[in-house]
Amino acid sequence: MTDSFLAVDWGTTNRRVYRIEQGIVRSNVRDDRGIVAVPAGTFADEIALLRARHGDLPMLLAGMIGSNRGWHDAGYVSAPARLEDLAGGLKRIDARTAIVPGVSRIEGARGEVMRGEEVQLLGAAAAGLVPPDAQLCQPGTHCKWARLERGALTDFVTAMTGEMFALLKAHALIGQEMTGVVHAGHAFREGVGESRRNDLLASLFSVRPAALLNLRPCEEIASFVSGLLIGADCRAHAARGPVHLLADPALGALYSAALMELGSQAVMIDSHDAFVAGIVRIRELSR
Amino acid sequence: MTDSFLAVDWGTTNRRVYRIEQGIVRSNVRDDRGIVAVPAGTFADEIALLRARHGDLPMLLAGMIGSNRGWHDAGYVSAPARLEDLAGGLKRIDARTAIVPGVSRIEGARGEVMRGEEVQLLGAAAAGLVPPDAQLCQPGTHCKWARLERGALTDFVTAMTGEMFALLKAHALIGQEMTGVVHAGHAFREGVGESRRNDLLASLFSVRPAALLNLRPCEEIASFVSGLLIGADCRAHAARGPVHLLADPALGALYSAALMELGSQAVMIDSHDAFVAGIVRIRELSR
Repeated sequence: MTDSFLAVDWGTTNRRVYRIEQGIVRSNVRDDRGIVAVPAGTFADEIALLRARHGDLPMLLAGMIGSNRGWHDAGYVSAPARLEDLAGGLKRIDARTAIVPGVSRIEGARGEVMRGEEVQLLGAAAAGLVPPDAQLCQPGTHCKWARLERGALTDFVTAMTGEMFALLKAHALIGQEMTGVVHAGHAFREGVGESRRNDLLASLFSVRPAALLNLRPCEEIASFVSGLLIGADCRAHAARGPVHLLADPALGALYSAALMELGSQAVMIDSHDAFVAGIVRIRELSR
Repeated sequence: MTDSFLAVDWGTTNRRVYRIEQGIVRSNVRDDRGIVAVPAGTFADEIALLRARHGDLPMLLAGMIGSNRGWHDAGYVSAPARLEDLAGGLKRIDARTAIVPGVSRIEGARGEVMRGEEVQLLGAAAAGLVPPDAQLCQPGTHCKWARLERGALTDFVTAMTGEMFALLKAHALIGQEMTGVVHAGHAFREGVGESRRNDLLASLFSVRPAALLNLRPCEEIASFVSGLLIGADCRAHAARGPVHLLADPALGALYSAALMELGSQAVMIDSHDAFVAGIVRIRELSR
């Protein structure tokens, strides 16, 4: 295998560019040129710029770059999906440039889509970072919970956990109270415990009278709300067995603490390693 | 009983002024001079203006006018609370002007407060609009669920149901999809059914892929989200037995439909009648 290429994990607000030679990452640069920072009609220039900066090489792009708000809509392959399906479904822009499709899952009136996460999820299994049968969680603005069976992505669901926290903090009446720094301490665990009530709309509001009546210190409230939301997310989605977390360290720590509080086990997986394993395999399968 | 007075149900964004003579409402005027429309320091002028307009009479004020953002903080009486307790706890501003206190309920680190709703709730029982033992629901931005036992307000909880709908519509990613008019039809009932999953963070987000994959017409999505939130609210709080709704006709119709879908029974109560019954009784008790 003698092959060099550029892989871009291109999200909405950020992107990460990897230069990969013979399956090994030679450089790895993150910046904030997500798709919303690139004016429509200028993606080809942006691609040329990346080649000028990182090497005049073949390119594989994954993530929101393949959405209808990105460069070219790369569509979706249907779950159950394997890396072979992603490689077979590549949207080829020119002889040296292709975009990885997303994955969709439709069941009656219920639908789910992902775009970008699939490379990490299937890469984690391909690299042996998780077993071929595993549940994985990618916390974030829109948290993905995924099920792998015999190395194939068979099912997944999206929860607006991170977006909800941000919405409440920025715009809700209780946002006034959410000024403290979130950490996985006592108040966070209390929030996780509160999620057992299955009463999110009242549990969220309860922080306001609690603050008004001096029942909870203000600096604890953001952590309590975070625990409540992450607890509700984990309770609804964590099945029996360990949850493999593909997360940055801060969110990984919160989800680990919530899962532990709920009696589940969390295993942290390096999401960059997972992405690289997945994209290298797609490259191999598509040459 | 020969008595005339002005009663003001004075909320955050609106108020309603009643002129009551011998227990009978002679005029009833609603305007948008809620407490946020009245600059701090000018409440006494506002009161004088109301007397100039509606009659130079004794006044009983209820609602957010008695909060720390209103005119004078009227404090709270503790649940269980009766109209006698509200009358006994009046904040007397001068010989002719008093503010009704709110009600609080504290249990360990959990606290609840209400201010304004208590007059309606206890008035409903005093007027025989609901039985002395009843569950009541006041839908709105912050929906109150209350329990009356032998005519006393013993327990209540607040859910941010209406605020959540407004937050999502104005600021969430799914807000782009929530453009249709909400009505208690098929999509609303599907949302109520979806609330059974106890997975609000994923159920809410699901409308986006459903729209993206053309699985649900866009004009249905606001109704589905409304059904989901109101369904979650009712599932968490409606106990056995009928729910007495103190609501405007539009919200009353939605809550009735959700309760029916969940196998509960809804009874609509006129909230103005309930307020008047409560405030007249407080006036009698406090003269």
